[in-house]
Amino acid sequence: MTRVLVLNGPNLGRLGPREPHVYGSGTHAELAAECVRTGSGLGLRVEVRQTDSEGELIGWLHEAADAHTPVVLNPAAFTHYSFAVRDAVAMLSAPVIEVHLSNPHAREPFRHVSVVSPLVTATIAGLGFGSYRLALQAIAEAVADKAA
Amino acid sequence: MTRVLVLNGPNLGRLGPREPHVYGSGTHAELAAECVRTGSGLGLRVEVRQTDSEGELIGWLHEAADAHTPVVLNPAAFTHYSFAVRDAVAMLSAPVIEVHLSNPHAREPFRHVSVVSPLVTATIAGLGFGSYRLALQAIAEAVADKAA
Amino acid sequence: MTRVLVLNGPNLGRLGPREPHVYGSGTHAELAAECVRTGSGLGLRVEVRQTDSEGELIGWLHEAADAHTPVVLNPAAFTHYSFAVRDAVAMLSAPVIEVHLSNPHAREPFRHVSVVSPLVTATIAGLGFGSYRLALQAIAEAVADKAA
Amino acid sequence: MTRVLVLNGPNLGRLGPREPHVYGSGTHAELAAECVRTGSGLGLRVEVRQTDSEGELIGWLHEAADAHTPVVLNPAAFTHYSFAVRDAVAMLSAPVIEVHLSNPHAREPFRHVSVVSPLVTATIAGLGFGSYRLALQAIAEAVADKAA
Amino acid sequence: MTRVLVLNGPNLGRLGPREPHVYGSGTHAELAAECVRTGSGLGLRVEVRQTDSEGELIGWLHEAADAHTPVVLNPAAFTHYSFAVRDAVAMLSAPVIEVHLSNPHAREPFRHVSVVSPLVTATIAGLGFGSYRLALQAIAEAVADKAA
Amino acid sequence: MTRVLVLNGPNLGRLGPREPHVYGSGTHAELAAECVRTGSGLGLRVEVRQTDSEGELIGWLHEAADAHTPVVLNPAAFTHYSFAVRDAVAMLSAPVIEVHLSNPHAREPFRHVSVVSPLVTATIAGLGFGSYRLALQAIAEAVADKAA
Amino acid sequence: MTRVLVLNGPNLGRLGPREPHVYGSGTHAELAAECVRTGSGLGLRVEVRQTDSEGELIGWLHEAADAHTPVVLNPAAFTHYSFAVRDAVAMLSAPVIEVHLSNPHAREPFRHVSVVSPLVTATIAGLGFGSYRLALQAIAEAVADKAA
Amino acid sequence: MTRVLVLNGPNLGRLGPREPHVYGSGTHAELAAECVRTGSGLGLRVEVRQTDSEGELIGWLHEAADAHTPVVLNPAAFTHYSFAVRDAVAMLSAPVIEVHLSNPHAREPFRHVSVVSPLVTATIAGLGFGSYRLALQAIAEAVADKAA
Amino acid sequence: MTRVLVLNGPNLGRLGPREPHVYGSGTHAELAAECVRTGSGLGLRVEVRQTDSEGELIGWLHEAADAHTPVVLNPAAFTHYSFAVRDAVAMLSAPVIEVHLSNPHAREPFRHVSVVSPLVTATIAGLGFGSYRLALQAIAEAVADKAA
Amino acid sequence: MTRVLVLNGPNLGRLGPREPHVYGSGTHAELAAECVRTGSGLGLRVEVRQTDSEGELIGWLHEAADAHTPVVLNPAAFTHYSFAVRDAVAMLSAPVIEVHLSNPHAREPFRHVSVVSPLVTATIAGLGFGSYRLALQAIAEAVADKAA
Amino acid sequence: MTRVLVLNGPNLGRLGPREPHVYGSGTHAELAAECVRTGSGLGLRVEVRQTDSEGELIGWLHEAADAHTPVVLNPAAFTHYSFAVRDAVAMLSAPVIEVHLSNPHAREPFRHVSVVSPLVTATIAGLGFGSYRLALQAIAEAVADKAA
Amino acid sequence: MTRVLVLNGPNLGRLGPREPHVYGSGTHAELAAECVRTGSGLGLRVEVRQTDSEGELIGWLHEAADAHTPVVLNPAAFTHYSFAVRDAVAMLSAPVIEVHLSNPHAREPFRHVSVVSPLVTATIAGLGFGSYRLALQAIAEAVADKAA
Repeated sequence: MTRVLVLNGPNLGRLGPREPHVYGSGTHAELAAECVRTGSGLGLRVEVRQTDSEGELIGWLHEAADAHTPVVLNPAAFTHYSFAVRDAVAMLSAPVIEVHLSNPHAREPFRHVSVVSPLVTATIAGLGFGSYRLALQAIAEAVADKAA
Repeated sequence: MTRVLVLNGPNLGRLGPREPHVYGSGTHAELAAECVRTGSGLGLRVEVRQTDSEGELIGWLHEAADAHTPVVLNPAAFTHYSFAVRDAVAMLSAPVIEVHLSNPHAREPFRHVSVVSPLVTATIAGLGFGSYRLALQAIAEAVADKAA
Repeated sequence: MTRVLVLNGPNLGRLGPREPHVYGSGTHAELAAECVRTGSGLGLRVEVRQTDSEGELIGWLHEAADAHTPVVLNPAAFTHYSFAVRDAVAMLSAPVIEVHLSNPHAREPFRHVSVVSPLVTATIAGLGFGSYRLALQAIAEAVADKAA
Repeated sequence: MTRVLVLNGPNLGRLGPREPHVYGSGTHAELAAECVRTGSGLGLRVEVRQTDSEGELIGWLHEAADAHTPVVLNPAAFTHYSFAVRDAVAMLSAPVIEVHLSNPHAREPFRHVSVVSPLVTATIAGLGFGSYRLALQAIAEAVADKAA
Repeated sequence: MTRVLVLNGPNLGRLGPREPHVYGSGTHAELAAECVRTGSGLGLRVEVRQTDSEGELIGWLHEAADAHTPVVLNPAAFTHYSFAVRDAVAMLSAPVIEVHLSNPHAREPFRHVSVVSPLVTATIAGLGFGSYRLALQAIAEAVADKAA
Repeated sequence: MTRVLVLNGPNLGRLGPREPHVYGSGTHAELAAECVRTGSGLGLRVEVRQTDSEGELIGWLHEAADAHTPVVLNPAAFTHYSFAVRDAVAMLSAPVIEVHLSNPHAREPFRHVSVVSPLVTATIAGLGFGSYRLALQAIAEAVADKAA
Repeated sequence: MTRVLVLNGPNLGRLGPREPHVYGSGTHAELAAECVRTGSGLGLRVEVRQTDSEGELIGWLHEAADAHTPVVLNPAAFTHYSFAVRDAVAMLSAPVIEVHLSNPHAREPFRHVSVVSPLVTATIAGLGFGSYRLALQAIAEAVADKAA
Repeated sequence: MTRVLVLNGPNLGRLGPREPHVYGSGTHAELAAECVRTGSGLGLRVEVRQTDSEGELIGWLHEAADAHTPVVLNPAAFTHYSFAVRDAVAMLSAPVIEVHLSNPHAREPFRHVSVVSPLVTATIAGLGFGSYRLALQAIAEAVADKAA
Repeated sequence: MTRVLVLNGPNLGRLGPREPHVYGSGTHAELAAECVRTGSGLGLRVEVRQTDSEGELIGWLHEAADAHTPVVLNPAAFTHYSFAVRDAVAMLSAPVIEVHLSNPHAREPFRHVSVVSPLVTATIAGLGFGSYRLALQAIAEAVADKAA
Repeated sequence: MTRVLVLNGPNLGRLGPREPHVYGSGTHAELAAECVRTGSGLGLRVEVRQTDSEGELIGWLHEAADAHTPVVLNPAAFTHYSFAVRDAVAMLSAPVIEVHLSNPHAREPFRHVSVVSPLVTATIAGLGFGSYRLALQAIAEAVADKAA
Repeated sequence: MTRVLVLNGPNLGRLGPREPHVYGSGTHAELAAECVRTGSGLGLRVEVRQTDSEGELIGWLHEAADAHTPVVLNPAAFTHYSFAVRDAVAMLSAPVIEVHLSNPHAREPFRHVSVVSPLVTATIAGLGFGSYRLALQAIAEAVADKAA
Repeated sequence: MTRVLVLNGPNLGRLGPREPHVYGSGTHAELAAECVRTGSGLGLRVEVRQTDSEGELIGWLHEAADAHTPVVLNPAAFTHYSFAVRDAVAMLSAPVIEVHLSNPHAREPFRHVSVVSPLVTATIAGLGFGSYRLALQAIAEAVADKAA
């Protein structure tokens, strides 16, 4: 069973209470559960983590790089300025899919710039938890393609 | 069975011969077939169209607006400058998902700007034909949610 | 009786159902009727056309240039990027008045730029159908002045 | 009889001698007379004022705000930088129409920016004294609509 | 005899009457005749087309791409914003030479930007009909080089 | 008893009726009274003035400069463009505190720039009348420090 | 007694030795003591924390969001780029006042931009420790208003 | 004897006490006396005025325009934003020389932009009172040339 | 026989060894020979010069201005910044054609700006030595036209 | 023996496996060893540290500030946005040399901006491990100079 | 007798034939003679030089720096880009006055930027040869002041 | 013994008297001697040259390109605008190290841009003569590596 890391950046641990009109009312625990369940159905062993610390997120990306683990990455606010996260993403060899719960282009101008996007395999945004489900499915397909 | 329009903009009729290292080697006919087949499996009646004409694309969007048809839209180069397409997208009431075969943020700077994105439900990019498959799936889920 | 062309650009055929809080609830047919009626009262033979096609709009402008016909032009979204429409406007010798239903400066930033305005005789914006009525009146006065 | 204020900003008292190829050869007194006459025909009691002082113009706008008087405003050069005039315009509750004798977009780049436009009901530019006549007519129609 | 397409964009069908101080007084028919005649002398079978429609121009470029036909392209106003034309040019495998009748750098700033230039073999501007004659000669030389 | 000038710029005389959701519902007279009362409690003789005239505001700043009077300054819209007010502020030797009723950074972009801020002792914004009360207290402390 | 968090960002633990001509010569311990003492006098239980870690600062803001605690926030250098801190500030429901010891607008250009300011209740800058004292007073007044 | 107006803008009445390291220690009265004396020696009847009011300065420029009086103009801070002063300068028919006491290009960036310079005959900056003396001499030469 | 100057700017003496994938493998001597030979066939006496010195290039342009000699100019890197070369080009009265071996728009962004282009008769770029041959032919035609 | 801190920022712990064509194939351990060895030869006691955490890096810079320790600093991606690191560097009193393994100016545009450079003694970039060796040598010379 | 260098940059040797509507019809020899004659009357020994070579102009500035010679400098096109000339000007210790024949701010935008102005004592522009005469007079006064 | 060229650009011949607080008090002759001496110790035959002429510097770079000579290059002010020098640097095949005496990033903004840096092997700045010593050492190591 292929292992996949779902990595969530700053403030995403606050899902549910946090601006539910933007992010939906599900909590981070519910998001994690849904990712694991979706992964199960796809033959993926999904592990979901969240951190508010840039350094910790970078460490997890190093871990994924070492183990050639596919990654579903929601860098949250780091999306817009963390070149350190960008440099870590550049080391990944397995597929990495950038996801966002909301559609950043329908929000403030600073959210229109992603310093991470040029280095990811694909981006999925605007579908709430669905962004993660589809990203996992894309990874499952990529894994299957490679195995074929 | 819910009807879905998959609308492809300029030069996408040339898939296959056109820069296969960027867009993959499948043709537009193959893409259309895959969309229809994927739709079938999801209970969607998918119709795929392609045009190089801005006016024709706008007309199709009007048609979708009138019939409240969900849309999967790849505006291709229009993405970056056609405010006329943008104004047509603004009229849609059913979900509209912007898709791209490649990851625009990994290409030339002019492709980093989308005048359409602020008005779509969601965006999916970088997964080749997979971008369309996932978009259809997202639409199927949205339809199911609404029906529920 | 002087002939006048009222030329409407993309998406204006959708007036009525389209964002009525912005554009009002009158349809394009009603707008056309009002323009013809207003023209009658001013001694003008008004012909109203609408297209979503840049090429067709350019062709109509060529027709007006050949016949020295005054034009009331609402380029809609083309206002903001179509240098091809601009080049066609540059050929007109009779008065041309740019109109907008809403006030573009009270809307999104991209609507604050008009590539057409530097070449028109006058601009009228923000008065709904009234923008057209006043434009026709301005043309009637210009025609009268010239005849005098 | 509805009262309307026509407020003219700096240097407009110099009409006639001032760059007649741009502004026409009519004087400010002639403009005022024409506005009053036009107003009469429309059932409006028009009062025309001109000032080179930003503070005085702001005071007149306050007066219009207090009395809910419709305004025809030519802010002249203040158009391009006076956020103080803008803040005063923001207080008006009756219709306010920004007018210009010439077409600012056909002139120097600094005239392409209006800090006032986002707050007005409508804009009319490029028709010489006709810009004022049409503005008064638009106000007459607005008054009639409201009375209806 | 090698076939060459000379493709002219919007408003170029109006040559002659259109701003003769900028574009010269020759008509499009005369330009076409001169291109054919020049081609004859160089062993080229030249076909000249003109359109105001972006979609039609894109279609002709696809035709040239399929047949590996060399192209002389005057995109006119599309030069400055049509990324759709740009994407079509990117598919050409035979030489493509961008021409302009006038010198765009001696005109308005918006004409200083070409979204097409990065993808063409060469550019020739400022020589009126001569720009086309020289472009055909350059294509004749390229064809001869390749045959050698 | 130390004298302090509270100087209010254009449109602030309109407090109360003016956009109460932004500026609160207190009038300028009430603001003045509250400043005088607050000053009394702090051992300051506070004089509050308001003007819509840039020249008059500059004159008051000269008066403060001559008498080394501390100033609480709300330049209102002048904040964003009046380099003349800025030059007058540069002459002050006693403390000068820039205040705003609302938080300019939560409003339109043009309000994010202050040409005055680089020259003031301190800035306080977003607390309604409280911005003035705190500014007076800061001046009282500065006066006390200096006296100590 | 209402609890208030005073949260200080990176390098503020170095007050005293650090560039005393800019920040004054008081140490962070002295600042903390002064805040606690000022709070006492105002009926506030003040807790002062400092961190060089973005993640830790975000955690404290989450804590304040959960407990509806008012916050006095000096984000120090994070002010200028940390959208992660900004997103955390957006979750606060009690008043939050941004403070700075010095006047950022009198320093380097990069300090003129605050990504946090659009989301705070108020800003106070340039008064050294006084910025904190006034911020606490403003919070005391807000608490009293609400209790009233 | 030719009459010349020397017109000084905002804050220049404060010369002497105002930042003497920048502007020198002479007062405005001394500057005026020196201008009159210099004028005498050149056969010019010089009148020196100063105002902090934009409207008053504009009025003086109108007076000069009416009487074809040469002008030495130091617009002070208005130099950088007053398009109203610029429009008034545009009406002058006799020579107008822009002067500055200091060298604006050696000061803050906002002083590097002059909205007035494109319309003046000449500019002289950086010579303290000498800027005025040389400007008067230049006017004397221009007058002599014209008389010759 | 008409004399023509072909003037080559800095680093062009290095053709051949210098980045042959960009500039081709011909040397400057070969380019000169080809220009002379092409000129012969066209009835032109061609003289080719190359310099790395801006001042020397300017001197040659003065020489061409004095003798009304047509010029084929490749300013090389001076294209992008030398306003001194630009000012010298402005003095030419006979035709001047700017040439480039490669297509500058397909290279680094700094090569997209030409400070010389607004002043030349025509530009030809991207054809290697062919750019020069066509330029000479264009000059031959211009000479013939004038003689006719 | 003088102590020197060599501080390496985010992702530098990954040297070796990480993009060896950019950074070389040596590991961080090898880099550390080489720094220590080089230091030994120069009479310096070198301590090498690496962190992915901005807060930890700031703490180390505080430690160096307290002990007046010279620093060799490779801020890695923090170079381009961490004003918090910049503020910490500003506190150093002993020499601080910014080093980079690769030449940032030959890479992506975002790497051309360093928010740290204005505050360092010197910069050395592009020499792989050699950048560190030379930096240590420069520090040894500075120490010797000061001792002299 | 004080020696003064008048240094003229590229293309100024062409005065007279060169665009006389901009620069006047006097030749460089006449300008030099007028400068010498004016200098004589002021007790200055004036030497006038002109060069098209940036390096030679820099050498002359070094000569002036060594001998503490006042300079009247017209850098011509170098004004707008030569930081090398700027660095040489920075070494001058005697007064240096930048002159221009025409008013650069009334010409092309690139002439609005001077990289030299921030370092000169004063600037005089727009008076033709008069700019030089006044500059020499200003130097004479400065010399006299210093001698006094 | 390997030969190395040390090439110094404009104004560097003036070291010593020139702004010693920025560049140190050593003369160019002393710098040259130190470079030769340092080179000797490293087994390099160092030749130091200085010029104020862009063309001469380009010629020296050509010489280095022909002989595959390593270069230490201080382009001085040419750093910021001379694309001609940049193009010459692009031809070098042996290592080229850009050096600066001072730290350009701690000086005026125009010094933050280097058009040369993207093409050099390495950059060393801010160490006075030490920048050159370290550059020579880096070249010695590169030579040794290659020989190994």
